[in-house]
Amino acid sequence: MAHITVSKDIPGIRSLALFRPETGKPLYELAQVLLRGESTLSPAERELIAAYVSSLNRCRFCADSHSAAARSLYGQEGKLVTAVIQDRDTAEISAKLKTLLQIAEKVQQSGKAVTPEDIEAAKKEGVTDQELHDTVLIAAAFCMFNRYVDGLDTWTPTDPKIYKEMGKRLANKGYVLNKKS
Amino acid sequence: MAHITVSKDIPGIRSLALFRPETGKPLYELAQVLLRGESTLSPAERELIAAYVSSLNRCRFCADSHSAAARSLYGQEGKLVTAVIQDRDTAEISAKLKTLLQIAEKVQQSGKAVTPEDIEAAKKEGVTDQELHDTVLIAAAFCMFNRYVDGLDTWTPTDPKIYKEMGKRLANKGYVLNKKS
Repeated sequence: MAHITVSKDIPGIRSLALFRPETGKPLYELAQVLLRGESTLSPAERELIAAYVSSLNRCRFCADSHSAAARSLYGQEGKLVTAVIQDRDTAEISAKLKTLLQIAEKVQQSGKAVTPEDIEAAKKEGVTDQELHDTVLIAAAFCMFNRYVDGLDTWTPTDPKIYKEMGKRLANKGYVLNKKS
Repeated sequence: MAHITVSKDIPGIRSLALFRPETGKPLYELAQVLLRGESTLSPAERELIAAYVSSLNRCRFCADSHSAAARSLYGQEGKLVTAVIQDRDTAEISAKLKTLLQIAEKVQQSGKAVTPEDIEAAKKEGVTDQELHDTVLIAAAFCMFNRYVDGLDTWTPTDPKIYKEMGKRLANKGYVLNKKS
């Protein structure tokens, strides 16, 4: 049971956004623009960064739902998601994406952990300022979302089917705050 | 120099929000509703929680600017802010606020660090569900803001006068995204 009284049949962050829609609104808007807005990083890549950071923070609800969203968006290459979370270095992703995941990992520890060398390595792979900005903000935002969901001990489903459905919905509809989706 | 090209004369998060207004907008809206919106916690108490978490994350820009905002809002009791940041237990604040700062400290470590005992202690002091919710979200949000500001190595002024002015402006005008304030 969550630490505060929220709807029992609604999992994770959605239960909190419905408990307090005044904060739910900017939080969902942030997720939508960061993960679906115009960007040279694909929605699949951005969901992968979100899932990766959530996994480092051991937030099962966010890790499983954003992994499912990334799998749905990658389509046939969906198995990449598990590979990245298990071992970023050996996963078959671009060198560019590896440099971004390295920066996301540092941000998960602390903003101060990001070094000029991390940034230089990314720029050498052609990463733009906006891609750097968005990667740091996605990683930082999931350090918030993970703490929010776990700090209030919201309902974390354990049935993989629930996450698969959630992933499809996030892939197709994005971040929309209502009771049903 | 910041890791990405932002306006040189604008410090901290404002430089990032102006670099990417699409994300700046929901971030400023979140800060405004969380720290100034309707609540039974005063804006001074909420700024104190923000400053406390930023201090734990060693984010100088956020710690100094939100400490200054809290001091400005507390007015004559402004010296409390330094006392809380130096030693929460001996500071002359209410037992209720101490339980909330304890929860904020746990959230700074990890959402999972918050225990049912922490929640129970707060409820015994009369803390409401919304106060619990807002405290967890303020602490979580500053784990994001701190990482965002430091992860991109934005300009952190060192002149205390700049923070004093910033604190007054945040106390009087809140979180408004424009170039001048």
